Amino acid sequence: MKKIAVLGYGVVGSGVVELFYKNKEKIEKNTGTELDVKYILDLREFPGDPYADKVVHDINVILSDPEVCYVAECMGGVNPAFQFVSSCLEAGKSVSTSNKQLVAEKGDILLQLAKKNDCNFFFEASVGGAIPCIRPLHTCLAGNDISAVAGILNGTTNFILEKMFCDKMAFDDALKLAQELGYAERDPSADVDGADACRKVCILASLVFGKHVYPDSVYTKGIRDITLEDVQMAQAMDSAVKLIGCVKRLEDGRILPTVMPMVVPNESLISHVDGVFNAVMVWGDGFDKTMFYGRGAGKLPTASAVLGDIIDCVKAEHTVTSHEWILADNTDFIADMDAFCAPRFYRISARLDDAAAKAADELGLKITTACSTQGNDDSAAFGCIVSACDNKTADAFTKALEDSGISVLAQIPVLAD
Amino acid sequence: MKKIAVLGYGVVGSGVVELFYKNKEKIEKNTGTELDVKYILDLREFPGDPYADKVVHDINVILSDPEVCYVAECMGGVNPAFQFVSSCLEAGKSVSTSNKQLVAEKGDILLQLAKKNDCNFFFEASVGGAIPCIRPLHTCLAGNDISAVAGILNGTTNFILEKMFCDKMAFDDALKLAQELGYAERDPSADVDGADACRKVCILASLVFGKHVYPDSVYTKGIRDITLEDVQMAQAMDSAVKLIGCVKRLEDGRILPTVMPMVVPNESLISHVDGVFNAVMVWGDGFDKTMFYGRGAGKLPTASAVLGDIIDCVKAEHTVTSHEWILADNTDFIADMDAFCAPRFYRISARLDDAAAKAADELGLKITTACSTQGNDDSAAFGCIVSACDNKTADAFTKALEDSGISVLAQIPVLAD
Repeated sequence: MKKIAVLGYGVVGSGVVELFYKNKEKIEKNTGTELDVKYILDLREFPGDPYADKVVHDINVILSDPEVCYVAECMGGVNPAFQFVSSCLEAGKSVSTSNKQLVAEKGDILLQLAKKNDCNFFFEASVGGAIPCIRPLHTCLAGNDISAVAGILNGTTNFILEKMFCDKMAFDDALKLAQELGYAERDPSADVDGADACRKVCILASLVFGKHVYPDSVYTKGIRDITLEDVQMAQAMDSAVKLIGCVKRLEDGRILPTVMPMVVPNESLISHVDGVFNAVMVWGDGFDKTMFYGRGAGKLPTASAVLGDIIDCVKAEHTVTSHEWILADNTDFIADMDAFCAPRFYRISARLDDAAAKAADELGLKITTACSTQGNDDSAAFGCIVSACDNKTADAFTKALEDSGISVLAQIPVLAD
Repeated sequence: MKKIAVLGYGVVGSGVVELFYKNKEKIEKNTGTELDVKYILDLREFPGDPYADKVVHDINVILSDPEVCYVAECMGGVNPAFQFVSSCLEAGKSVSTSNKQLVAEKGDILLQLAKKNDCNFFFEASVGGAIPCIRPLHTCLAGNDISAVAGILNGTTNFILEKMFCDKMAFDDALKLAQELGYAERDPSADVDGADACRKVCILASLVFGKHVYPDSVYTKGIRDITLEDVQMAQAMDSAVKLIGCVKRLEDGRILPTVMPMVVPNESLISHVDGVFNAVMVWGDGFDKTMFYGRGAGKLPTASAVLGDIIDCVKAEHTVTSHEWILADNTDFIADMDAFCAPRFYRISARLDDAAAKAADELGLKITTACSTQGNDDSAAFGCIVSACDNKTADAFTKALEDSGISVLAQIPVLAD
């Protein structure tokens, strides 16, 4: 049995503990190792918390316990996180951190300390929250010469820009809404003025180009100057305004790390990344380009990335890291299409009439979209989408339509998100 | 020095050798290990090829050479790939394969063989080509309970559907174009009828749900029945038709693996994945949802994934797998904003006139887009995008516009793909 210590029992730290216990069995099977959380370091007490008995106030308890092999640092800030993480690595304990400020300012030192002490320092959660991007960059894509990375690295500003884009809100109103929803802090400067995205650019740039890039080397401009008129004009040009963190290698071999609002044409998948989601696009000589998309922040998404790192720390102690799946002794675990359930798209020969609406109603179906289009030759086409149902119900609706004189020209399931 | 053997010197195998030698230095630095390709197994001779001297015709040469630690299997098909890969694993050599048929039909056996012989069997290239998705699924996201995976797993069909969507081509014409461009085989059945996507669903389903799922357990329907009218009606409903490979856990614990055309609403990022690109969306309890996007096929993209696996095999032999970056002894390697170059978006107070066009021309700028919009209150707004330039030129154009009486209300760089 190997033990984990969690430093900091705030939003992320408590998410790590919660997600670990939720999926403990799965994680132990995946790593082939019995695991448990032994300590939670925090200055506060947590009376009534199910894990209150694990809370300690002194880092030395963790440092001096040889059972603790893995440490999840979720405190944030450089001090005392830097001292604590350094001491853990010096004691040969692998560390996973969600602390982007720590990595952006001290990454080089901590990586060297880890190497010297034969343990790992991982920070998947420090960029893009839940999105696997750090590990793919230094394993899956490591056979390539990577030339650029660009992406949406801050969900708060992306939410604000989307509200301006979709709901025609002014910047100040969109910011206020983001604060009300808890996406933006009362002092929104770190998000809105680009400091948060800047730290993530530092981490990506250092990782890809192999030398530490500090925050003050990054040209950083936030979104305060972006007006509703700018966003609308970009929209008229089939583009969106996004806060883009980017680092690119120039022809002379130097790199240019930047954070600034950019106009992104709709042909780029980045322009379609909405809400508080993040995305990281990477360009390289072999793979051309690839993009990673997901939640950039939040309790469980960030915890997911921290736990992924811990799992990798455990696996790094074995030679065999490939996942295993077993021979299926039977196929009972695979359902057949009777179990398939999805909304349905129908292309039909005529407009839905009352009889069709009644048939849908009787089958428990809601017509969520009805559509007709006019071709250049004045020919009309008709379609509708109905709520999720199984194949039997979908076929029954087809029959009802045909019975009422509407031909079904096509029926295609809809992918629900 | 550790040696690599490449099985099969076709498109993918030759890509692996090419990309390896292109980035050898980087790969050796990343893994901390000197590496070389020692053998290329193929029935043919390759006179004039720069690596012709590495070609061997007998697998036993590779099996009996203790210097060979890593094997890249790029032959395709089940026979003799299965025998060769089995023998390599039994000899303790880690294997990376791009062969989706092999993994879909024999993955469980090969993973067990690898474990028994203390080596790795990796297959990142077998799903999504260059896209890192296999490794993130079994490391980064392994702290989660994954409930579903769905995506565009075949680039040929996605290209055909896009041509129908964007260029109003009929299915047969789009297929013919795909064949002319080399995206589709002369016998396009494996792509068009879904067998290729089906194999990838098997691999994803087995990996995520832990039991081998064979191709004949997957409901598979291709895109032959999809008409231009279907695609256009979906478009009228703000959706796209895509061939979706999917596996989902049902409420009763069984799983439902499917390949079929589905209507994908534009709110889903999947609907915006165009051309021969692939994308894999994953849903889980901690991270919510995350998507991986990139090239699903091709010589160097597939080679990128195979090499990433080899790099991971090498790293798996060390405890420390975290990447390292060095302290930057100076910041000369970081350029400043004088080096920044991008197209520019201008929001302006009036329509571009001849004087403005002349000024752009004199600065070497091309006006790529000009736009004006009319508000509800009849107020007009104007904008343009000019070709890539540095900040000095962008400022000079601003000055020229203002000199000719056009106010510049905003200037924002454009993210070029």
